Amino acid sequence: MGNEKMMKEREKFLQKAQSLIPELLYEEKTPRCYWMQRGETAKEQKLYCCLKQEELGKGDRILFDFGHNCPAYFQFGLKKTGSPQDAPAFLYFRFCETEREFLEESGEDSGWISRGWIQEEWLHIDELPCTAEMSRRYAFRYVLITVLDTSKKYKISFENVLRKEVSCVDGEAMISALPKCGDSMLHKIREVSIRTLANCMQTVFEDGPKRDRRLWLGDLMLQALVNYETFQKNDLVKRCLYLFAGLCNPEDGMIPACVFEKPVPLMDDSFLLDYSLFFIPVLVEYYRRTGDLETVEELSETAFRQVTIAMKFTENFLIREEGISLQGEKYFCFVDWKEGLDKQCSMQGILLYAVRYGVELCEILGQKEMAEKYGEMQKGLEAAAVKTFWDQKKKVFFSGRQHQISIASQVWMILAGLVQGKEAKELLLRVKDCPMIMVTPYMHHFYVMALLRAGEKEEALKHVKEYWGGMIRAGADTFWELYNPMNEKESPYGSYSVNSYCHAWSCTPVYLLKYLEE
Amino acid sequence: MGNEKMMKEREKFLQKAQSLIPELLYEEKTPRCYWMQRGETAKEQKLYCCLKQEELGKGDRILFDFGHNCPAYFQFGLKKTGSPQDAPAFLYFRFCETEREFLEESGEDSGWISRGWIQEEWLHIDELPCTAEMSRRYAFRYVLITVLDTSKKYKISFENVLRKEVSCVDGEAMISALPKCGDSMLHKIREVSIRTLANCMQTVFEDGPKRDRRLWLGDLMLQALVNYETFQKNDLVKRCLYLFAGLCNPEDGMIPACVFEKPVPLMDDSFLLDYSLFFIPVLVEYYRRTGDLETVEELSETAFRQVTIAMKFTENFLIREEGISLQGEKYFCFVDWKEGLDKQCSMQGILLYAVRYGVELCEILGQKEMAEKYGEMQKGLEAAAVKTFWDQKKKVFFSGRQHQISIASQVWMILAGLVQGKEAKELLLRVKDCPMIMVTPYMHHFYVMALLRAGEKEEALKHVKEYWGGMIRAGADTFWELYNPMNEKESPYGSYSVNSYCHAWSCTPVYLLKYLEE
Repeated sequence: MGNEKMMKEREKFLQKAQSLIPELLYEEKTPRCYWMQRGETAKEQKLYCCLKQEELGKGDRILFDFGHNCPAYFQFGLKKTGSPQDAPAFLYFRFCETEREFLEESGEDSGWISRGWIQEEWLHIDELPCTAEMSRRYAFRYVLITVLDTSKKYKISFENVLRKEVSCVDGEAMISALPKCGDSMLHKIREVSIRTLANCMQTVFEDGPKRDRRLWLGDLMLQALVNYETFQKNDLVKRCLYLFAGLCNPEDGMIPACVFEKPVPLMDDSFLLDYSLFFIPVLVEYYRRTGDLETVEELSETAFRQVTIAMKFTENFLIREEGISLQGEKYFCFVDWKEGLDKQCSMQGILLYAVRYGVELCEILGQKEMAEKYGEMQKGLEAAAVKTFWDQKKKVFFSGRQHQISIASQVWMILAGLVQGKEAKELLLRVKDCPMIMVTPYMHHFYVMALLRAGEKEEALKHVKEYWGGMIRAGADTFWELYNPMNEKESPYGSYSVNSYCHAWSCTPVYLLKYLEE
Repeated sequence: MGNEKMMKEREKFLQKAQSLIPELLYEEKTPRCYWMQRGETAKEQKLYCCLKQEELGKGDRILFDFGHNCPAYFQFGLKKTGSPQDAPAFLYFRFCETEREFLEESGEDSGWISRGWIQEEWLHIDELPCTAEMSRRYAFRYVLITVLDTSKKYKISFENVLRKEVSCVDGEAMISALPKCGDSMLHKIREVSIRTLANCMQTVFEDGPKRDRRLWLGDLMLQALVNYETFQKNDLVKRCLYLFAGLCNPEDGMIPACVFEKPVPLMDDSFLLDYSLFFIPVLVEYYRRTGDLETVEELSETAFRQVTIAMKFTENFLIREEGISLQGEKYFCFVDWKEGLDKQCSMQGILLYAVRYGVELCEILGQKEMAEKYGEMQKGLEAAAVKTFWDQKKKVFFSGRQHQISIASQVWMILAGLVQGKEAKELLLRVKDCPMIMVTPYMHHFYVMALLRAGEKEEALKHVKEYWGGMIRAGADTFWELYNPMNEKESPYGSYSVNSYCHAWSCTPVYLLKYLEE
């Protein structure tokens, strides 16, 4: 496709995306309760619960608890007692999704990721009394405020503290309307799933309202599925599809792994081979739910192009290891945050998974010739996968030159349709205690889907209750970016205070449970 | 005077004060130059001067130098280079009047005074490029910015950096128009005097544009004198007179040492016996310069009341020690920041000084009877002063039970008119090396005035050049709140980074020089 044509198309797609920006809903909520610490030794003291507002001076701390994690704007009134205000009041704020962020972490350590992500502010207030609306959006359940100083002549106290919760859907209303469930853990899992998704639904499907607050294609794939079962805000999926299509790489038409909305819609320079391919399942699932043929027709060329690009990284239908697993390459792939995971086999599975959706896309469009071409491609990829990755002796799929055995490899081969039924069940059983585990709820979602394909409904339900339930038992009111029951402090960033504790890709149980409880 | 009548009068005076709020002038200025430090080891590295803007990443520091100290609002543009902005930019700002504030001080130590006064901010910038106007007013020559973080994927650089200087007069224009002076130090002293005053001229005569930014009566007395010789913005003096009169203590009519403008005009609960009395010289000098009889008539009752209140603290015309020098008393007096200074004798002198102005006030008003009463009071105070404080043997005035000898005591007895001419000259000579020195430019002003009264023009000029010139030699472009050549780190607050480096009460040389060079 000529570059000029693509540039025009990008523009058209972007305009369509921008015409679909949803209206945001705001709801004001007061804190459920608050806690205090006194004076210079505040850090060593335990917080104590207060019924009545007390005056605050230098070194005192106050913690407002809003009951659950939510993206919101923070507002407060501040008044003074004592003499006239003879110096600015000076306050330090930390907005925390979880207790651990203020109990265990210094706030100064953000690992290799930008410290800018730590939700903290320093504020001077020159004139009291005042009403302050903090201008940035935070994701938080708790606000911990340290009074760095007032003066010897006056103290302060808070009043009219509230947060303005923001989303394009009303998650709490849907949670309230949930039918009672005999299993209280399952009820809780549904509640937390819905809240996690609602928190991430802003003017795009964000990955996490604390960090990175951006639209990622891998996250979108799962969010869209959950959305169909819950809010059915299908135009937001449509907007995101058009955003990705409108922000494809002008050089080769590849869809970036993530896009930015501000200051203007912008493609990221991160490209992930697996994420780009997911454009096809997202588009096909969108069609299945909406029947919106016009969108599918407009975006199909962009979709097919992702397969064409990915196929360049294959040889005789086998994904080349160096094409996807080396960080030096322009395009690598994600699969999971598990350190040391070899991704060649998973990537073969994902390509096959996308191509199978591609066949369906051809059928939707009535493109017979294309469908045949995709059918051939599918067969070629399947044959190469079995030939290359199947260990006849161990009866598992391996990955890469080191013949690494991982859960991810089996999962993707099953989801790609290479193994089915009883065989799939036995395959998953065989790697159950494999050390190359999964660490993200994102990969765990695919694992549960694979169990379902293998007919293992009971095992799948058990896994949802164990894994997502584990986060709830650890105090989660929204599901996390990363959860490894064996290492609660695990972080891909070197510091778990920048982990996102409300993360899109972990919102799927409410979708999964629909199939597990049928 | 009945309380109701006083409340009505306060209101009337306040309205008049508020009708005189001057318009502020704003002028945009770009930095004269800037300096940089690189990376993690920035603190150990020397700043180096840059000709071309360089990109900044984590740990880098940049210093903008605006050439001289001034109250202003800071603005900047910030742009990014590299990949799209995948994390907030996080910056730390320090606004400094002098080099020492960032070279020698940690910024966290503010002594016993509120840390809120340290001019520092932490800023997250979510969206680049941006133009930011920081909302608070700072007093600064230097802005030191530390990049706390960007991310691994982008860097930042500044553009369109400027400050919007603010004052109700144009000090720099007056400085430019100063006639050339053969003595370059005297020229510099005039320049710095004018700038110091201009910086403090906002919607009131502030004491210091960095800290406390408030109208103090002792400072006003000196500022008004300098104003008559320079900007002649006499309505601002009038506004301040009405503000003080309108904010006298409703209980007894005493004028507070300082008042607040925000959130509404408000009296401070600090009362200083010496400051209250200074209302009379301020009013009389205002009349001398303006001939505004209406104002004098309206405010004379308030003025006389300050003497009546002060006289309650005397016995047989002698100021009682416990009335003025004990911190536990409601009213004490200031005189100087010199630690350990006994203030009884100075206070007697100040009361006498005010009463002599009171006699003049009676004459202006044509109140013969009142003038006689004040004449009697003057004689009584003089007799008590000589009888109580004069050491016949040492031929100096002493103060308090410990018979402390200080420069301040001699100065105020001379300014009160108790000693004159040659006697005054010998008296000042006698205490020249007295250890109970003066530490504020405020007290040094009165010392120079005393030298003038003693006919010691040459010595007075020498003192101005030595003392105020000492600050200039130490790098001052505005005169300081406190300067002790023997101890450059002296601070009344326990940390000299909260000392004010542009302070109203030190702006007097341009006034003094008028009499010294005649």
